[in-house]
Amino acid sequence: MVMKKFLNNPNNLTTELLQGYALAYSSKVKLVDNSIIARAVPKSKDKVALVTLGGSGHEPALSGYVGEGMLDASVVGDIFAAPGAPKVLEALRMFKDHPGVLLVILNHAGDVMNGNMAFDMAVKEGIKVKKILTAEDIAPGVNAPIEDRRGLGGAIPLYKIAGAAAEAGKSLDEVLAVAEKFNATMATLAVTMKTATHPQSGQYISELPDDMMEIGMGQHGEGGGTGPQKIATADEIAETMVERLIPAAKLQKGEKAILVINGSGATTLMEMFVVFRKAHQVLTAKGITVAAGRCEEILTVQEAAGFQMFLAKLDDETQKYLEAPSNAPYWVTR
Amino acid sequence: MVMKKFLNNPNNLTTELLQGYALAYSSKVKLVDNSIIARAVPKSKDKVALVTLGGSGHEPALSGYVGEGMLDASVVGDIFAAPGAPKVLEALRMFKDHPGVLLVILNHAGDVMNGNMAFDMAVKEGIKVKKILTAEDIAPGVNAPIEDRRGLGGAIPLYKIAGAAAEAGKSLDEVLAVAEKFNATMATLAVTMKTATHPQSGQYISELPDDMMEIGMGQHGEGGGTGPQKIATADEIAETMVERLIPAAKLQKGEKAILVINGSGATTLMEMFVVFRKAHQVLTAKGITVAAGRCEEILTVQEAAGFQMFLAKLDDETQKYLEAPSNAPYWVTR
Repeated sequence: MVMKKFLNNPNNLTTELLQGYALAYSSKVKLVDNSIIARAVPKSKDKVALVTLGGSGHEPALSGYVGEGMLDASVVGDIFAAPGAPKVLEALRMFKDHPGVLLVILNHAGDVMNGNMAFDMAVKEGIKVKKILTAEDIAPGVNAPIEDRRGLGGAIPLYKIAGAAAEAGKSLDEVLAVAEKFNATMATLAVTMKTATHPQSGQYISELPDDMMEIGMGQHGEGGGTGPQKIATADEIAETMVERLIPAAKLQKGEKAILVINGSGATTLMEMFVVFRKAHQVLTAKGITVAAGRCEEILTVQEAAGFQMFLAKLDDETQKYLEAPSNAPYWVTR
Repeated sequence: MVMKKFLNNPNNLTTELLQGYALAYSSKVKLVDNSIIARAVPKSKDKVALVTLGGSGHEPALSGYVGEGMLDASVVGDIFAAPGAPKVLEALRMFKDHPGVLLVILNHAGDVMNGNMAFDMAVKEGIKVKKILTAEDIAPGVNAPIEDRRGLGGAIPLYKIAGAAAEAGKSLDEVLAVAEKFNATMATLAVTMKTATHPQSGQYISELPDDMMEIGMGQHGEGGGTGPQKIATADEIAETMVERLIPAAKLQKGEKAILVINGSGATTLMEMFVVFRKAHQVLTAKGITVAAGRCEEILTVQEAAGFQMFLAKLDDETQKYLEAPSNAPYWVTR
């Protein structure tokens, strides 16, 4: 079967997509050494810098969130592959004169290994760096060992909150503290209806029968979910998922939440709105206020059909940072 | 075959998606009478109002662009169906005390018929309303009769420019003039790789063999294109399309342009970046400056794979309005 994608030589894909991204938003971001997306107009050295790393193929994640009020740099790997530690170290060095650098690592084996290696090297070089690991996937259970809990789309609202704290002039410890507070209540659950094609190999990244869906599948088609089940209605799916997410996000009656429906690729905004509506109804009925909402493709899995539902607790501080200005190309706030 | 979409009863789909949209962005938009999306905080009566109409199933279009600096209201029809004239009239009446209303109609038979009927009724009622028709599809040729030239995603940057002029306090004639100036150089060409499913009937909206793509297909699967052809590389496709768009947008060496790659649904941002890159290279080589770029799903065709390439000329005035603030949920500018 011919792949139905707009591609040139697959070996050049990551370079070409980064070049295109930097050209499309050239007033906001620039491409450094073919593997780091940084702000086109770097912030003065008096603020904490926020750096992240991850593979390509999940656009707009992660580099779509480089900009004022969010990330200072994103280190980019090949399709579904972590960038090497030297590249991550290069990005950390860009901010060695800043009052500190917070490195955000999403929990996937390659990202953790390369992120930690670069972190250790940076510390040895005297760079003032701290790190935070996101691992908010609740598919394997909220008490599952950390190795089983993937870092999914929740990293992106975390960038927003930590980025706004950094922009407000907070110290490295303060930025880390607010990021950890938010991280502690983050919870994501994914559902997949149709799998995706690896854009370099042309192979499906997982399998799913025609009349089946799976709750809990990872963003590279990894298992760990509840196994394939018959396709249910949007309301049934939304209710099942939000009911699992509420206790994981430690949300109680009277509290405030952020709810994000993050489309995987082929699932329409139309469907995301329908799902959001039901999840919002369930939360409201429990006395939980949806203080921030978003339906969008924030971290994708190629042309997979499905979505991630993300829920976390907000307090006045994290809500303020969430609403603070950002001009990152794919999370602009006004 | 089971439809791989997140849906409840198809008869309630449009209502549910509008409810979900209004809940997700409740600080920005509200749902009126189940069929009009209006600003949650209406602007004072001293500005020209911008109103549009169109069917659902193309989210975030068209209602995603209601907000400060863009639309005042969007009148929503059922899936791929125009709203009735009485609904459009109801929306026009909401702004009868404003210094004027500009009604933007995208060239599709149902939208034109219902938009024109509502326009005539509003004029009879003494509402100060003018209208503008977008028909920038160049698939049938730039000199094709107006009936053959569809209104595609170009309407959305036009909302942005006209909306900013209205927000700046311009008169109805002035808002119309700047919109017409931009409209006169708008050009869009679509390419489709994979067709989409109608979310209510479950039927494919067109047909396309496994190894084929089609340039020029309409956003409801209508023909008018060059017919199916073998899938080419991203660079070949981008170059073919932009070469046809440049003369249609009347762009000359030394001039400024806006270039938008608008994903149809299942085509990834990754691919859109690759295509943008090549189109940008072709424009730059011809001495045309890409002064504004965007890669995003701004007007979709369900889960179709493909994109619309949009090109138009910018001058200092239209560029200023394009960059002016907007807080519309799906076209935020900072």
